[in-house]
Amino acid sequence: MKNFNDENFLLQTPVAQRLYHDYAEGLPIIDYHCHLNPEYVASDHRFENLSKIWLEGDHYKWRAMRANGVEERFCTGSDTTDWEKFEKWAQTVPYTMRNPLYHWTHLELKTAFGETRLLNPSTAREIYDRCSEMLQQPGFSARGLMKRYNVEVVCTTDDPVDSLEHHIRLKSDGFGVKVLPTWRPDKAMAVEDPIAYKAYVDTLAEVSGVGIKSFGDLMSALKVRHDFFAQAGCRLSDHGLGEFYAEPCTQAEADVIFSRVYAGTRLGNADIAKFKTAMLVEFAVMDHDAGWTQQFHYGALRNNNSRMMAMLGPDTGFDSIGDFTVGEKMSRFFDMLASRDKLGKTIIYNLNPRDNELVATMAGNFQDGRYGAGKIQFGSGWWFLDQKDGMEKQMTALSNLGLISRFVGMLTDSRSFLSYPRHEYFRRTLCNLLGNDIEQGLLPASEIDFIGREIVGKVCYGNAREYFGFFR
Amino acid sequence: MKNFNDENFLLQTPVAQRLYHDYAEGLPIIDYHCHLNPEYVASDHRFENLSKIWLEGDHYKWRAMRANGVEERFCTGSDTTDWEKFEKWAQTVPYTMRNPLYHWTHLELKTAFGETRLLNPSTAREIYDRCSEMLQQPGFSARGLMKRYNVEVVCTTDDPVDSLEHHIRLKSDGFGVKVLPTWRPDKAMAVEDPIAYKAYVDTLAEVSGVGIKSFGDLMSALKVRHDFFAQAGCRLSDHGLGEFYAEPCTQAEADVIFSRVYAGTRLGNADIAKFKTAMLVEFAVMDHDAGWTQQFHYGALRNNNSRMMAMLGPDTGFDSIGDFTVGEKMSRFFDMLASRDKLGKTIIYNLNPRDNELVATMAGNFQDGRYGAGKIQFGSGWWFLDQKDGMEKQMTALSNLGLISRFVGMLTDSRSFLSYPRHEYFRRTLCNLLGNDIEQGLLPASEIDFIGREIVGKVCYGNAREYFGFFR
Amino acid sequence: MKNFNDENFLLQTPVAQRLYHDYAEGLPIIDYHCHLNPEYVASDHRFENLSKIWLEGDHYKWRAMRANGVEERFCTGSDTTDWEKFEKWAQTVPYTMRNPLYHWTHLELKTAFGETRLLNPSTAREIYDRCSEMLQQPGFSARGLMKRYNVEVVCTTDDPVDSLEHHIRLKSDGFGVKVLPTWRPDKAMAVEDPIAYKAYVDTLAEVSGVGIKSFGDLMSALKVRHDFFAQAGCRLSDHGLGEFYAEPCTQAEADVIFSRVYAGTRLGNADIAKFKTAMLVEFAVMDHDAGWTQQFHYGALRNNNSRMMAMLGPDTGFDSIGDFTVGEKMSRFFDMLASRDKLGKTIIYNLNPRDNELVATMAGNFQDGRYGAGKIQFGSGWWFLDQKDGMEKQMTALSNLGLISRFVGMLTDSRSFLSYPRHEYFRRTLCNLLGNDIEQGLLPASEIDFIGREIVGKVCYGNAREYFGFFR
Repeated sequence: MKNFNDENFLLQTPVAQRLYHDYAEGLPIIDYHCHLNPEYVASDHRFENLSKIWLEGDHYKWRAMRANGVEERFCTGSDTTDWEKFEKWAQTVPYTMRNPLYHWTHLELKTAFGETRLLNPSTAREIYDRCSEMLQQPGFSARGLMKRYNVEVVCTTDDPVDSLEHHIRLKSDGFGVKVLPTWRPDKAMAVEDPIAYKAYVDTLAEVSGVGIKSFGDLMSALKVRHDFFAQAGCRLSDHGLGEFYAEPCTQAEADVIFSRVYAGTRLGNADIAKFKTAMLVEFAVMDHDAGWTQQFHYGALRNNNSRMMAMLGPDTGFDSIGDFTVGEKMSRFFDMLASRDKLGKTIIYNLNPRDNELVATMAGNFQDGRYGAGKIQFGSGWWFLDQKDGMEKQMTALSNLGLISRFVGMLTDSRSFLSYPRHEYFRRTLCNLLGNDIEQGLLPASEIDFIGREIVGKVCYGNAREYFGFFR
Repeated sequence: MKNFNDENFLLQTPVAQRLYHDYAEGLPIIDYHCHLNPEYVASDHRFENLSKIWLEGDHYKWRAMRANGVEERFCTGSDTTDWEKFEKWAQTVPYTMRNPLYHWTHLELKTAFGETRLLNPSTAREIYDRCSEMLQQPGFSARGLMKRYNVEVVCTTDDPVDSLEHHIRLKSDGFGVKVLPTWRPDKAMAVEDPIAYKAYVDTLAEVSGVGIKSFGDLMSALKVRHDFFAQAGCRLSDHGLGEFYAEPCTQAEADVIFSRVYAGTRLGNADIAKFKTAMLVEFAVMDHDAGWTQQFHYGALRNNNSRMMAMLGPDTGFDSIGDFTVGEKMSRFFDMLASRDKLGKTIIYNLNPRDNELVATMAGNFQDGRYGAGKIQFGSGWWFLDQKDGMEKQMTALSNLGLISRFVGMLTDSRSFLSYPRHEYFRRTLCNLLGNDIEQGLLPASEIDFIGREIVGKVCYGNAREYFGFFR
Repeated sequence: MKNFNDENFLLQTPVAQRLYHDYAEGLPIIDYHCHLNPEYVASDHRFENLSKIWLEGDHYKWRAMRANGVEERFCTGSDTTDWEKFEKWAQTVPYTMRNPLYHWTHLELKTAFGETRLLNPSTAREIYDRCSEMLQQPGFSARGLMKRYNVEVVCTTDDPVDSLEHHIRLKSDGFGVKVLPTWRPDKAMAVEDPIAYKAYVDTLAEVSGVGIKSFGDLMSALKVRHDFFAQAGCRLSDHGLGEFYAEPCTQAEADVIFSRVYAGTRLGNADIAKFKTAMLVEFAVMDHDAGWTQQFHYGALRNNNSRMMAMLGPDTGFDSIGDFTVGEKMSRFFDMLASRDKLGKTIIYNLNPRDNELVATMAGNFQDGRYGAGKIQFGSGWWFLDQKDGMEKQMTALSNLGLISRFVGMLTDSRSFLSYPRHEYFRRTLCNLLGNDIEQGLLPASEIDFIGREIVGKVCYGNAREYFGFFR
């Protein structure tokens, strides 16, 4: 019987252990997509206690607590103390067995704090006090944790109107870790709410210095900001979509739609689809020409619980997996770009695992040797799928229908400075898959060193370093 | 090599065996959803022979026989004898290897009759004669079998107009097993056929004593029956849906639609969706206020073979798995209730396993500590998915995306008094999953007793007992 | 640790090894669906070198090369030599680990050429030269390879207007392997392009000797060709569909639609669906009455990259897996036939594995003992799914929801004379699944001989021989 969470955690075979320890364990982390607050890095934030760094804003934990019968005030309430919230979390942890939270929790406690006890009501107080105390030490500040986890690059998620002040400050102040912005223009496409949209456009006009009277102006203003992001070191964009859009839209049509929504008119679905297509195409061209990688996170069904949305706002744990039909539109959208030779490096992340095979094969339609290996990437298991089973299915679909050797690998997608062990978790899972294959004779044992260097080493680090061009 | 169907059947590891034998094996059965005929329990029915209890009405077996080339008259015909049908079934059994029928068959023979020989043409006659003889003994009547399998509660499936006479009689006659009705108002929503619908409404009016001239009257009459079901011990409702409905419908609209259909007019799809939404909302409110649990079984594509439908009617083995798009509507329907704070305990059962992750995460959107742990349940593998692979996938999705520890577990959904071993099958499968996890170090071996008591014990029995409130 | 690609490749347990070596290994191959060029068999073609037989037309390899960063001219270009292409392929091979190409490549090298070295840049030249030389020997011609792999029957894929000259010549010239045509009337339904369609109809009229002025004439002409195919030994039809069609269409409607498209009018989607339904129904009736088996390959999203389509044409590696909603239409289409008692033997192949369970249960709706066992077949893992994981999922879904014992098994679907080891690959995978089941006690070890004869032997050979009636 294997031990829980020891040095060979998740590594079922001796070969897997060898692959992990010899080829993966020591590699730096490139976290090319996350939601860290750059201000925390810039100010080298210290966290008051374990609840502050671990529970605040963590909707994964809140969902688990709600499912465990914990009342809302212990999740997001303001009339409960940090300790009370932690206590409820500690009561919940044993009931999360088989959920990734159980693994993450203990891996984070172990790797950040050297804490190897299981978290439960009987250990909660001691663990809370001990870790909270450690968080006051220099090695446990935002920057301290990034160093501790051997992080080399971090890409945050930022709005085009963002000043990027923290990124700029970080660039100049000698912190060894690259903290780069990512272009996420979701609000620039959020025409569903004309009033909020007008306000956004006005802010954009101000920030960019471009008066915005038409779709053309809008894109010019955004291009100014795109250039500004590039100067700040940005190498990726990101889009959060329910579905894909591929409705041809002329410049004239886009101008009319823009005028209407800017004047406060609610748009119909057909116009929304046209407008979003037009914007996504323009963004894709900017990314292509700048040599950036564009990311598409699609398929979430968001804000399902309107009562809780009204109380807590978005991103508080009331989102789930949708079942949108996307194949034809995704194909047409990418073809709009490919046919103009403007489809650059792209990562597609699906939220519903039933799309794994669709996405893995869609990528194959647009691979292109002129852009190097793995131009179109099937993104790592995202959000709900960022767990052993989800990652194994993503990697198996990618392997069977594409080339896992050319995969750019893991990212945390996290708001937390304690999430870096997810890279370790991913690396162990990858090594375990490969180890099982070698053990079973599905891959040749003579090639272990090749597999270690060229697959493990590259998927865990080398491919991302090369693909995104952070060090060019 | 492990033995087939011995005491450690399905239990691959020593830990799994320990979990099953120490924590699961001895637990009573709460079968909270089935299609048993309550009259058979009330009259303590004895079955004439093995075909009568085992093949009659069993569309799983008929499908397998048809796929094996057996002619229809040996499945459902009246010009063939019970023995001839059994003989054809016995010829088919060896060809069902890898199908759940092969496991169920031998598990049922073993646990009910102590018969451990494999069923095939050479053993058929002896097994048929021996089991048919045993069926004449007192321990093998409807009630005898329920006692033999340690059944504590059974919930049948009943129409609102049903007299519940057998349930009422059972309540008073001292039979130790609770046999409770379940509210299944499918016919009250079946507006597709106006003539049948009018007849149903008229019966409902008569049975309830409420004259029905409007949608409001209709719901009043149904509320009378809902109260009547509650008095008879009902704790659950159930709905069989192809898709979900979430079309807002005012009382006035519902009245108009009701009048039209009652007058014999065929409704369009838009009206059907509105009417069904209105009814489902009203039913959900009744269930919420009564503290019942509502169940939704969705996603079947029924009566696909119209020639056989004309010959044999529904539920004869011509249904299959559909591919309806349901996410957005399911979300909006539950939100209609949650936003009025009328969403009570709910179990969602999908028929297409590609929806597993969608349903598991949908549940998470509406968990609510005020209702205790596991308010919204992702239901156990249903119908075609009630087999090892289907159950493992359901439990793995639930584990990864929710809390398996709070799962209310298994039900037979069966018409047969010989189906109780499916609970054993489920329990073994659950213990095997947990055992594998412990063996591989994915769960800590130090927690075996916690896992046995709090996961195995609760999922197999304790959670259902607590959740449904049968003993309050 | 098991060896890679040795005699027990893919066979994890001793039982699996026994099943394969004792019951599967020696069986002939019935390859009932492929895309071989019959002219190559008729002329007993010899291949100039390893690239010509292995890379030419192989879009699987091209996709892998593109994903590996290889430029297009080394895939499909004419300004590069066969050796240069091979060199690029050899550079790619190590990066295909975990993709089926890695297994196929080494299994083909081993079984055709006795070459057991791994293909990579350091072995490329020697392997290329050695195999190219062997290809000049008599045992390595088209016919030589078919004999080497113990092929008994091959069904090619042919258009109704094809002269079948090579099949006819082969029938009479004493080559021991049956090479039969398959009726694939995709072009007869391709009304999307009126100009090409008119040209096709004119050719059909000429070839059949039937003047075509109406839908009725069209079907009469096709019936003439259907009879001609039957005389040439045809036993199967095949249809490549994105989605299913089930729109009732009268003869009069079909005549109108035919006249319009023949006159050059572009049809709307509703008319296309009606017309295709009408044709598919007529084809199905012809197949039924002739005792043929009809095949449906559905769910591909084709020609996604229009730039490459313009350069290279179809079937060059720019197709992928779609996500069409098909359940209701598939059901209605088959029911249109079943209700007229004209639904004959049918094989359904899905491209998106998320439809596995849908298809497996759809088959169950139309099984019919009058047609023998396994009338409706859930087809073997197709195209992208023709790999270990895809085959295991297909066989597991079929097992759980139908009868794997009645499965007609594997086909290559290939253009290459080196693809026959895919049958070996399938057989090993099947034996491995069954062996694991026996090892784990999920199937009784006492039944190994039954399983070997009645499942392994039949699925790998016997069922196909019986089902298609090639030897009647």
